[in-house]
Amino acid sequence: MSENPLHTLMNPKSIAIIGASNNPMKMGTMQALSVIKDGYKGKLYPIHPTEQTVIGLKAYTLPEELPETPDLGLIVVPIDHVFPLMESFGRIGTKSIIVCTAGFKEVGADGKRLEQQLNEIAARWGIRFVGPNCMGILNSAISLNLTVMKFDSRPGLLGLASQSGTYVTQTLSYLRKRGIRLSKAISTGNEANIDLIEAMEYLGEDEQSRAIILYIEAIRDGHRFIEAARKITPHKPIFAQYVGGSAAGAKAGLSHTGAMAGPDFLYEGIFKQAGIIRVHSIEDLYAHGWTAATQPPLKGNRIAVVTHSGGPGTAMSHVADQGGLALPTLSAGVQNEIRQYIPPHASSANPVDLTFNMDTDRMTVIIPEILMKSGEIDGLLIHGPMMSGWMKEVHPHLAMLFNNISLDEFLVQFQKDLSPAMVLPWKYDLPLVLCSFMDRSDDFTEAYQDNNIPVFDAPEKAARGMLCLLRHKEIRERKISPAALTPPKSPEAEKIIRDAVACGQGALDEAAAKRVLALYGIPVTKERLAVSLDEAATAAFAIGYPVALKACDWEIMHKSGKGLIALNIKTEEELRTAFASIRRAVGHDVPILVQEMLTGGRELVVGMTRFPGFDPCILFGLGGIFTEVLKDNTLRLAPLSVADAEEMLDDIKGKALLDAFRGMPAADRTALAGIVQKLGFIALLHPEIAEIDLNPVILTGANPVVADALLVLKG
Amino acid sequence: MSENPLHTLMNPKSIAIIGASNNPMKMGTMQALSVIKDGYKGKLYPIHPTEQTVIGLKAYTLPEELPETPDLGLIVVPIDHVFPLMESFGRIGTKSIIVCTAGFKEVGADGKRLEQQLNEIAARWGIRFVGPNCMGILNSAISLNLTVMKFDSRPGLLGLASQSGTYVTQTLSYLRKRGIRLSKAISTGNEANIDLIEAMEYLGEDEQSRAIILYIEAIRDGHRFIEAARKITPHKPIFAQYVGGSAAGAKAGLSHTGAMAGPDFLYEGIFKQAGIIRVHSIEDLYAHGWTAATQPPLKGNRIAVVTHSGGPGTAMSHVADQGGLALPTLSAGVQNEIRQYIPPHASSANPVDLTFNMDTDRMTVIIPEILMKSGEIDGLLIHGPMMSGWMKEVHPHLAMLFNNISLDEFLVQFQKDLSPAMVLPWKYDLPLVLCSFMDRSDDFTEAYQDNNIPVFDAPEKAARGMLCLLRHKEIRERKISPAALTPPKSPEAEKIIRDAVACGQGALDEAAAKRVLALYGIPVTKERLAVSLDEAATAAFAIGYPVALKACDWEIMHKSGKGLIALNIKTEEELRTAFASIRRAVGHDVPILVQEMLTGGRELVVGMTRFPGFDPCILFGLGGIFTEVLKDNTLRLAPLSVADAEEMLDDIKGKALLDAFRGMPAADRTALAGIVQKLGFIALLHPEIAEIDLNPVILTGANPVVADALLVLKG
Repeated sequence: MSENPLHTLMNPKSIAIIGASNNPMKMGTMQALSVIKDGYKGKLYPIHPTEQTVIGLKAYTLPEELPETPDLGLIVVPIDHVFPLMESFGRIGTKSIIVCTAGFKEVGADGKRLEQQLNEIAARWGIRFVGPNCMGILNSAISLNLTVMKFDSRPGLLGLASQSGTYVTQTLSYLRKRGIRLSKAISTGNEANIDLIEAMEYLGEDEQSRAIILYIEAIRDGHRFIEAARKITPHKPIFAQYVGGSAAGAKAGLSHTGAMAGPDFLYEGIFKQAGIIRVHSIEDLYAHGWTAATQPPLKGNRIAVVTHSGGPGTAMSHVADQGGLALPTLSAGVQNEIRQYIPPHASSANPVDLTFNMDTDRMTVIIPEILMKSGEIDGLLIHGPMMSGWMKEVHPHLAMLFNNISLDEFLVQFQKDLSPAMVLPWKYDLPLVLCSFMDRSDDFTEAYQDNNIPVFDAPEKAARGMLCLLRHKEIRERKISPAALTPPKSPEAEKIIRDAVACGQGALDEAAAKRVLALYGIPVTKERLAVSLDEAATAAFAIGYPVALKACDWEIMHKSGKGLIALNIKTEEELRTAFASIRRAVGHDVPILVQEMLTGGRELVVGMTRFPGFDPCILFGLGGIFTEVLKDNTLRLAPLSVADAEEMLDDIKGKALLDAFRGMPAADRTALAGIVQKLGFIALLHPEIAEIDLNPVILTGANPVVADALLVLKG
Repeated sequence: MSENPLHTLMNPKSIAIIGASNNPMKMGTMQALSVIKDGYKGKLYPIHPTEQTVIGLKAYTLPEELPETPDLGLIVVPIDHVFPLMESFGRIGTKSIIVCTAGFKEVGADGKRLEQQLNEIAARWGIRFVGPNCMGILNSAISLNLTVMKFDSRPGLLGLASQSGTYVTQTLSYLRKRGIRLSKAISTGNEANIDLIEAMEYLGEDEQSRAIILYIEAIRDGHRFIEAARKITPHKPIFAQYVGGSAAGAKAGLSHTGAMAGPDFLYEGIFKQAGIIRVHSIEDLYAHGWTAATQPPLKGNRIAVVTHSGGPGTAMSHVADQGGLALPTLSAGVQNEIRQYIPPHASSANPVDLTFNMDTDRMTVIIPEILMKSGEIDGLLIHGPMMSGWMKEVHPHLAMLFNNISLDEFLVQFQKDLSPAMVLPWKYDLPLVLCSFMDRSDDFTEAYQDNNIPVFDAPEKAARGMLCLLRHKEIRERKISPAALTPPKSPEAEKIIRDAVACGQGALDEAAAKRVLALYGIPVTKERLAVSLDEAATAAFAIGYPVALKACDWEIMHKSGKGLIALNIKTEEELRTAFASIRRAVGHDVPILVQEMLTGGRELVVGMTRFPGFDPCILFGLGGIFTEVLKDNTLRLAPLSVADAEEMLDDIKGKALLDAFRGMPAADRTALAGIVQKLGFIALLHPEIAEIDLNPVILTGANPVVADALLVLKG
């Protein structure tokens, strides 16, 4: 494996910037100022055609004039100048470039060609670059800020790669005010060269980044993305926000990066396959990422809630419970320990409600330690520690009773050593998440945040912060099975498909489709094709009554509701009537498929479709009439491992349908996962197939059997 | 209708406080300080047994010694003193009291008795009171703050009633920092006397409160709650957060208010019936309430998104679209107008993406006015206006290029008149919602918020803010039908039920249950009870094959999967076999119900259950094997109007099942709503019935028919 290009790009000892001047309103100038003002210790070389000095530094007219080969070139100039400058950097041996300049792929086909030119130059000189149309990078390890905004360059723990530059610049003060510190950040722009996947891989290798967050508008290679993420997610949490799946979103996405945005459902599936935790807001992306980056992992699902007021305690408990965390009633021993520190009628059971009290030690040190050392919980949620923020609020009211004491003198009285509270997560190796309605103007909020303990501004959010640790616990512990080995291609299936394509068929008829499935070991209904009534009667006798009759022609792709099917035929007499009736409905002597009649009320769907970059996609869900009504489906990319296929079975809302209930046995999960997996193989082996619907797959007792199949060929 | 007691309680001209002293750490002292410091213009009389003055005011030893009868008494003393003081207030003629003192119902049965005593005293003197165990009230109209925290007493627009005192006190600085101003707030505490419903009614009548928010842990009378809310919600939006439905939440709720918390599902249903918009976090409660309180109503579902950066624009569009708002492509005319103000490659279609630009007029005035006057949109979302907050960020970097200009001098250069942007929602009568990553340290955020235009700190939240206006539009426009008239009680049904109760039956058998349903006009399967094989054969012949056979005995409440049912019997021969087989499975000569065999794959459930205070509850949802698997149900309280029943049909995820599809006709909605409504009447007329399950109700073509029924009697 070649080294990730971001290792050098993110850690330059020297930087040349082209586009900085002494005009403070130019993007390049602001970026150069960020470099020199936010603590970077390496060398910065401004390159400017006319100025002698730029922001107080000696300026050079061309890269070729620099006293050394800079590790990194930053290009922020009008588009025409980009190409010769890239050549110049190539000549002097600079291998890492960031191109901030816009006007490329995002403006259309012409821009796309310009990106190709850029890539050709880069390839010729062995250059790797970020951008174009990006906002720069951040690296807190070396206090490097290449954006236009001020950066909190104290070393952070959270790595960010974003397809929107906004989330690497405009939110920097937002993050500082919420106590969230980035380790590294990369605005990937148009991704002409280095893409989000490489950025994710780099952050995966970066020890400083304890969790990764991704803002995604479009992934171009689903398989590479999943493969790269699966190497990271078992040990380092990745969170992703994807927007662009809706009609409105897709339109905005298109105008933004020029990349084709795939549907929401597709990304939902690949995130799950990759072990990535999807979030649905930028707030959650940062805050959940920060929680996972800072806290010890959750090792079980038992938590305690400590509060000084009922409402927030109830809300935290409720959200935690809904998301799968348990709030066990604490043992009598632990409750007795706690009771010494709370009023007689306060609750010690869990949630522990201290009721309102000025003694913050009880809430932040004494009771948390009792809980953390008890062995009865795996994580702790606390609502309410506050002091100076609160005192600032009440000082204007109370000062008169303290001889009009000044705010500063007043606050001094409430100062104390908060450090015993700040070490708890690491002392006991248990995650701690807080809620406070006070922001960083409060000493507790500030201390917790600066000591890498997350403080949320609402109880529901704190509980959801803890829940994201539970989600990563599930990902850490998920079953892994060896990569699937695609079976050999069936010559008979190949012939069936080739013949159909040769005849100009848009699909296989049901009998042929099921033959293809059967050749790969997918269980299908017992059935025979009959071209006459006598053949049908013979077939029914051989299969055994009751049977189903179906018109069988590739042009009849959807049969229900049109009189083309007769079900539950119990006698030859009924068969005669049904046979005639179907032929009448079709209007000509269509072949009739005589099929065993499956019983069992549980109907599923297994399907296949293809998207560019995400090919093939396998779908599993509720079938029959519920397919369209409930849209309870899940999707993954093939090839699927056995574990992948089994995860799909658990990833539908109606998954309880597969359990034993109402006298029906549990579904044979191995057989069902086998169908899902095999459909992926068929799609990989036969690229002529455009789409497949196995609907319904009926559970007859425990056994899944394909009752109907549609196999659409590429046009 | 008697006048709401809060009219006087919330607007006192004089207040007596008992529990204030000169000890600044006492709750009563802090409350008295809030009164005198936060702008109240009425009179405040401290009552104290020993002090001559309290917080600088002359103190009185007893209510009887006051120079006038105070309009309001505030009691914040230990519990034993509460009772004689309530008597004192009664004697001097004070009719409104707030009891903050805790130690009542929330500590158990003894406390509950004390509350009864309090109520007896109040009733004797014609007193109405808030509390006990509450945190006070706020009224911005008269700058009255009776809580312990500082209040932004500029007149607000949002009315709050909360069963958690925390949300009336601890969040006051939180709200101020988010530019949200309350009109009135009531911490209802244990609700021994005045309850949340009266508080909601008061806020409904209060003109200053343009929207209402409720924090709910338990409602004691569901019918009164719904009736009161339905008078308000067609013209004034109500938002509610309910927590306590989960196991963990219920436990916390119990320890908090002592009220029995009902399940989540129940509250979900009654909020919908009441036209209340449910939110799931305290942040949404405040922020959505504030948006609805400040903005003109949304009159259609078309919005435009204006942004200067793609990521937030995409996110806003996506969330708006997912929630049901449309982003129409703007007409060529409007786009041409916009194009004059944006760069060539920027998007004018919708979202309008200006790309980053220092000229805030374009984003906040020019383009918004073009859009608002176009007639093409019903609301506007903007991401990104900012200036001073941003300049404060970059000043440390840029100052050197401005001769080390001071921050103040620097900021002056970017000051401008923001008022043209601040009048737009009212000038065009269209809602405007903003997003900025800058807080109130930015002049735009501050100005918008202080001019009653909501600014959210994330794009997804801004879009959800706009969506809450869409939800209220739906509620304003929802169909109303006259209150249902309960039909007369059927004497035959009465007799069937009375006889079964007299025999000690725990339920009716299926035949009897269906007879009761039929007597109230609910369509049931054609069926006959047979006690012999011959009777069964005769019945089947009369009904017409195919038929179903079922063991029929009240003790057999759940028949599936036990061999007690035979379906789709087509011949007398099959009937004989099935008859014998069922009798074998039961083990004795059970009566057999011979029933027409219904076809049609769509199965629904209609049910009834009772909760104290919420009686009877009617349930509608997906039936058959999906009842337990998908739990796709909705609930309302009976009696149901026709419109209520029809809303239920649209309130399940699988509602498309009722439409025409796959050759099946659309369900007869009138007939289906009729079953739902009639089940409510049956429950109201026959209180001996504990629960009813009609499952499945099968759609045979368009017609719903009850195929199986279980009617459980009270034990």
